[in-house]
Amino acid sequence: MEFSSALLENAVNEFARLPGIGKKTALRLVLHLIRQEPSMVQGFGETILKMRQEIKFCKKCCNVSDGEICSICANPSRKQEMICVVENIRDVIAIESTQQYNGVYHVLGGIISPLDGVGPDELNIESLIERARVDEIKELIFALNPTIQGDTTIYYIQKRLQPHTLNITTIARGIAFGGELEYADEMTLARSLQNRVPVERFVAY
Amino acid sequence: MEFSSALLENAVNEFARLPGIGKKTALRLVLHLIRQEPSMVQGFGETILKMRQEIKFCKKCCNVSDGEICSICANPSRKQEMICVVENIRDVIAIESTQQYNGVYHVLGGIISPLDGVGPDELNIESLIERARVDEIKELIFALNPTIQGDTTIYYIQKRLQPHTLNITTIARGIAFGGELEYADEMTLARSLQNRVPVERFVAY
Repeated sequence: MEFSSALLENAVNEFARLPGIGKKTALRLVLHLIRQEPSMVQGFGETILKMRQEIKFCKKCCNVSDGEICSICANPSRKQEMICVVENIRDVIAIESTQQYNGVYHVLGGIISPLDGVGPDELNIESLIERARVDEIKELIFALNPTIQGDTTIYYIQKRLQPHTLNITTIARGIAFGGELEYADEMTLARSLQNRVPVERFVAY
Repeated sequence: MEFSSALLENAVNEFARLPGIGKKTALRLVLHLIRQEPSMVQGFGETILKMRQEIKFCKKCCNVSDGEICSICANPSRKQEMICVVENIRDVIAIESTQQYNGVYHVLGGIISPLDGVGPDELNIESLIERARVDEIKELIFALNPTIQGDTTIYYIQKRLQPHTLNITTIARGIAFGGELEYADEMTLARSLQNRVPVERFVAY
């Protein structure tokens, strides 16, 4: 692309460095901003910068946080003895959006994946073990993606926790709501048969 | 979406205000920026803001510009007597990227479209007429989209220019490079037949 303005070109290049944004999309975004009031564009830039400079990671659960402890861990109405273990911040947002979970979280920051060079030491596993040891945790719910890596991570953490007496569960695998039975893979279908649910419980939801 | 951090939520909302960016994409961009160095994010914000505050529109051709006159109009090696009339800045960038055009531009800022409430007065047409009258323009090349509105705009400007003696042309309509003849609409096919090109000229390109 040939730009006649260096200011335009620099702005397009900055946007094009973001993931999933190509040069054409970047140009569209910049031309949109040119049409906005300077104060609005200033607000945009300042909000992003303030976010980056002030955001912290919760000392307890490693979730993003405005303070030392995130608003979920600091909330007294949430069950502190129930921890949902997730891979990343996006998963916390996804589960929070269901409005069905009232415990706290622990963000691992990834899953064990030797092929990608990610071992237990790269993840927030030690702090989870520590929480299970010190705090009075009753249940640990694993909400990891149903992959070999996810299962390996569950297995590893479960082994490390064995001296402790606490309930360890994982979210149900099964046919997704609106999914087609005939297109489900055998693994999913087999698991959904094994873990079948009484109809009363199912309907109650 | 439920965010546990106001800083995160504000940043996501700012990105989600951009055209074509939904909440999920905005979250992905923000989480990417969280992983970057603060100085890099600062550079991002400052470049965008500087662009919005300092960018100007060229007094001659209405293209975006770093100064009063854009780098294309100010370039002495470009033919000032040949003006290519385009709808918007994106079209200038598209034509510049071909590296085949050595004249100057005039950006209309839109095309005549009564249904959308855009008449000649909303566009940079008066300044184009003025340029054709005052400067020694030899050729006017219309590079507008091949729509009814585009043709109306060409017709209107051509009528206004009639007392002047200058060459008025429009870019060729025809089958796009790599396009399939059988899927072309009749209008395009008919025009490409009418304006057929001697094979020598065609091959020379």
